[in-house]
Amino acid sequence: MSLQRRTEPPAVGDDVARLIVQGTDQPGLVAAITGVLSEAGANIASLDQHTSDPEGGRFFQRTVFTLPNLSVVLPDLRERLGEVLSDFDLTWTLAPANQRKRVAVFSSKSDHCLLDLLWRHRRGELPIDITMVVSNHPDHSDDVRAFGIPFFHVPVEKDRREEAEAKHLELLKGNVDLVVLARYMQIISEDFIDDVGVPIINIHHSFLPAFIGAGPYRKAKERGVKLIGATAHYVTKDLDEGPIIAQDVISVTHEDTAADLQRRGADVERRVLSSAVEAHCEERVLRDGNVTIVF
Amino acid sequence: MSLQRRTEPPAVGDDVARLIVQGTDQPGLVAAITGVLSEAGANIASLDQHTSDPEGGRFFQRTVFTLPNLSVVLPDLRERLGEVLSDFDLTWTLAPANQRKRVAVFSSKSDHCLLDLLWRHRRGELPIDITMVVSNHPDHSDDVRAFGIPFFHVPVEKDRREEAEAKHLELLKGNVDLVVLARYMQIISEDFIDDVGVPIINIHHSFLPAFIGAGPYRKAKERGVKLIGATAHYVTKDLDEGPIIAQDVISVTHEDTAADLQRRGADVERRVLSSAVEAHCEERVLRDGNVTIVF
Amino acid sequence: MSLQRRTEPPAVGDDVARLIVQGTDQPGLVAAITGVLSEAGANIASLDQHTSDPEGGRFFQRTVFTLPNLSVVLPDLRERLGEVLSDFDLTWTLAPANQRKRVAVFSSKSDHCLLDLLWRHRRGELPIDITMVVSNHPDHSDDVRAFGIPFFHVPVEKDRREEAEAKHLELLKGNVDLVVLARYMQIISEDFIDDVGVPIINIHHSFLPAFIGAGPYRKAKERGVKLIGATAHYVTKDLDEGPIIAQDVISVTHEDTAADLQRRGADVERRVLSSAVEAHCEERVLRDGNVTIVF
Amino acid sequence: MSLQRRTEPPAVGDDVARLIVQGTDQPGLVAAITGVLSEAGANIASLDQHTSDPEGGRFFQRTVFTLPNLSVVLPDLRERLGEVLSDFDLTWTLAPANQRKRVAVFSSKSDHCLLDLLWRHRRGELPIDITMVVSNHPDHSDDVRAFGIPFFHVPVEKDRREEAEAKHLELLKGNVDLVVLARYMQIISEDFIDDVGVPIINIHHSFLPAFIGAGPYRKAKERGVKLIGATAHYVTKDLDEGPIIAQDVISVTHEDTAADLQRRGADVERRVLSSAVEAHCEERVLRDGNVTIVF
Repeated sequence: MSLQRRTEPPAVGDDVARLIVQGTDQPGLVAAITGVLSEAGANIASLDQHTSDPEGGRFFQRTVFTLPNLSVVLPDLRERLGEVLSDFDLTWTLAPANQRKRVAVFSSKSDHCLLDLLWRHRRGELPIDITMVVSNHPDHSDDVRAFGIPFFHVPVEKDRREEAEAKHLELLKGNVDLVVLARYMQIISEDFIDDVGVPIINIHHSFLPAFIGAGPYRKAKERGVKLIGATAHYVTKDLDEGPIIAQDVISVTHEDTAADLQRRGADVERRVLSSAVEAHCEERVLRDGNVTIVF
Repeated sequence: MSLQRRTEPPAVGDDVARLIVQGTDQPGLVAAITGVLSEAGANIASLDQHTSDPEGGRFFQRTVFTLPNLSVVLPDLRERLGEVLSDFDLTWTLAPANQRKRVAVFSSKSDHCLLDLLWRHRRGELPIDITMVVSNHPDHSDDVRAFGIPFFHVPVEKDRREEAEAKHLELLKGNVDLVVLARYMQIISEDFIDDVGVPIINIHHSFLPAFIGAGPYRKAKERGVKLIGATAHYVTKDLDEGPIIAQDVISVTHEDTAADLQRRGADVERRVLSSAVEAHCEERVLRDGNVTIVF
Repeated sequence: MSLQRRTEPPAVGDDVARLIVQGTDQPGLVAAITGVLSEAGANIASLDQHTSDPEGGRFFQRTVFTLPNLSVVLPDLRERLGEVLSDFDLTWTLAPANQRKRVAVFSSKSDHCLLDLLWRHRRGELPIDITMVVSNHPDHSDDVRAFGIPFFHVPVEKDRREEAEAKHLELLKGNVDLVVLARYMQIISEDFIDDVGVPIINIHHSFLPAFIGAGPYRKAKERGVKLIGATAHYVTKDLDEGPIIAQDVISVTHEDTAADLQRRGADVERRVLSSAVEAHCEERVLRDGNVTIVF
Repeated sequence: MSLQRRTEPPAVGDDVARLIVQGTDQPGLVAAITGVLSEAGANIASLDQHTSDPEGGRFFQRTVFTLPNLSVVLPDLRERLGEVLSDFDLTWTLAPANQRKRVAVFSSKSDHCLLDLLWRHRRGELPIDITMVVSNHPDHSDDVRAFGIPFFHVPVEKDRREEAEAKHLELLKGNVDLVVLARYMQIISEDFIDDVGVPIINIHHSFLPAFIGAGPYRKAKERGVKLIGATAHYVTKDLDEGPIIAQDVISVTHEDTAADLQRRGADVERRVLSSAVEAHCEERVLRDGNVTIVF
């Protein structure tokens, strides 16, 4: 098949790791964390830190470092971090940076976001493995399979969403680290969000919180706005209310019809979605209640 | 006084006129209009035209032309246009382009939009005469008067808005062609809008329709949006729902506090407001129900 | 083949035509043109007009109109226009708006601009027929053919550019209305530009006139600019100096390596190129010496 | 005087300090630095770090922290840091964050950048004290003095630049931490740059490196670019070649005359300049040869 060729992803060395720490802010936290890394012989390549409030706020840190023989010494480093950080009220993860996220992409009839992700994936621009595409329409099966990626058609019939979601869970459980809704036009149930156990990123075709719900381009035309946009956000049980990861807009004029807005907005959607997926998969996005820290 | 010096506005010759036509679209309209202008010896400098729908839509045209001895021949041209256009279902205005709009600026405690308009006015960047500034606070009287512009302090006491608005009308009637609310933090009554008889432009500190009502920067912080913006719109009886003239946004991050958003948003507000005032005063903004055509 | 399906282009009715007029400005021009259209029973859908200088400048007008039975009455209309416009110093074209431009896309190793055009084409977003892809590398043959489009591999050997260009001319002559260089990394000879007889649009990976020549992203990294961009322009004999059609930029930071700039810039390149191709093919781009009017 | 009122600057507590470290990258650096801060009882509020190259690159770190009784304990902390950091090849500064930079603004005839800085200063938006304005023209003396700021008119006569620069040095030496050229239209000599001993920030009215030298808006019009911009950079002996701090652009069209470009570009200039001054004065800008790190 012609489209299976894949260039290599942005080179991440085998000795590079990412440490993500979050919790209650306390004096000495950064020193404690970097002290452990220093003792272990790590060289910090980048460090981002945020405190929601200097007085009693929440603490967020993302550290990328190089450590020779990473795979060998990682268990020891984890243990040592566990000891030191147990004095603080924190959660943390530590993983090699070259470990790519496994991603399932959900789509419906629109193909622009789906194809954009497939291409970038093929070109090695995103640190992800797209392991499957799931759609409630059969239309894109050939396109997707031409990239060498499995395509599953799971129809969602009116009043039988539960059945479809059960099939989704079968496909996803244990197989993916992230679900991306690439203009998937079905409501996701609260149960599904709980059961799937991995984050879900959605692209909404408006600059939220404007034009919540269906038909944002039509509403934008009716309201006569001079810019339209798109919002990538984590899916929560509150429709279109989840933590925002990325947003962008473009200018429009009175000459643009609702169809023009949709066509031009598609460019913003795919740009915003891929940038949110990239940030998430590089572990740049931390959640603080219903808002995000994007390092 | 140091601040009264004024450079000349963007040069508009005495022989330049603007013709604004709007109404029901019909074949032959552009030819009929430009035919009259051509017969009169006018040279068209720019022509913008928009049809809301090729089938039975509404028609909008803005024509700028040069005509020697404009002031002498204008009455004849008006009469001739009246004859020709009476066959169509239209409204139209024809006026010399060098006729500057008289503008009243309303402000409250924030000075960034007010001062921006005053400075641009002094620099001759806007085709307006600011004939007065009205505020419900006395704070900016010295600043305003330093520009040689009258300042009127009209307090608005709780439950006595009617009294204040009566004073406003006294000041405004016959004296202004446009009222600009430059972060004026009082509700305008429906009666006032009817009585004042000239358009009112407001700057709202969000990318409407997001964050309607008070406290948009606080709401933006809480919602965790990645961009903030401002919207200039005509004031109608429906708060924050009037026709949008101009909008813009800037990117923000998790590091920006609500105060940062307010400070950074102020730059967008003044830019959007002055651009809306400029477009309105150059008669580039036509209204089509609750949306605008901006040529 | 999976990729040949094509949605319909933005609907342009059979009765819609475009008239492009340019030349020496003179009073009465707009009236003369619209008068002929009006007599013929045309309804103007949009009219854009520009004069480079109100005194003795050059005149540019693009008119889109609807005329029942267009194909039948077009010859008469052309004749009538010829009579009326012969009094002026003008060139003009009149053609049905649904006549799609035939486009040849030239590419080298980078695929992002090429594939973007192919996908938009398939989705019916562009008013073009891509009739062939020509490349100096064989890499994209399968990708292109999967869209049902002919792919021609024409190697360009050092010091034998003439041979390659002779082959190009054989392929192109009579077959295309536009050549698009979609990151085609070979110099085009002055002879070729003369001989091919159709416009050539190139995408340059910098915000020209910054970083003329090869390696703009490397140069941008070295110079430490805070934004990178792309420029679509007509190809002339002066390398990177042709009339600019469209430009855009994005922000970058010190964290971006030259490789990051290249990857992120690719998004701007494809956006700018497709928007220039769209504008050109809708006859929105008129040339005035070395600058463009983009209606 | 009406314009002397000053709101308070963005509140920076008395116990907040900034530590800026740069030099050769080495493992253990971040831990060593944060270890000293932690021992001293400091709470890190924000930490930005950059390494120009993971292998043998240069290291840059900006740390903002809170430390009770800062003024009392600062000398001890400096001593301790000196001991620990002497093992590394570094330069560093440590200072209270509420120490405002003293700024001299140089201007010529254009007032938009000058007035923008004066206003923002009055409004307390910038962490600076504007201690004087110096101009080669007398025009803005009243405007500046209305803000309660000294204005010095130092004419620069042809071939007698040395005399003027000698006067400049008399005014500046020991009195300022930064010189801002707010559209100051005189060449600065290499000797002056050496002698003044503080950084100089200039605003150039183009998106450098495009349109180096005089008349960028005229050149932009002639080249037919579709965007114009501004660049704030440190002044070095190479004209328009110094390290870039901030850049931005806006879209323009064929309708904009060179005068329009100048007027519209003025908005970008003042925005870019004030953002560069803000970043510099918050010590967010570090220099790495001829490029900048902007945290």
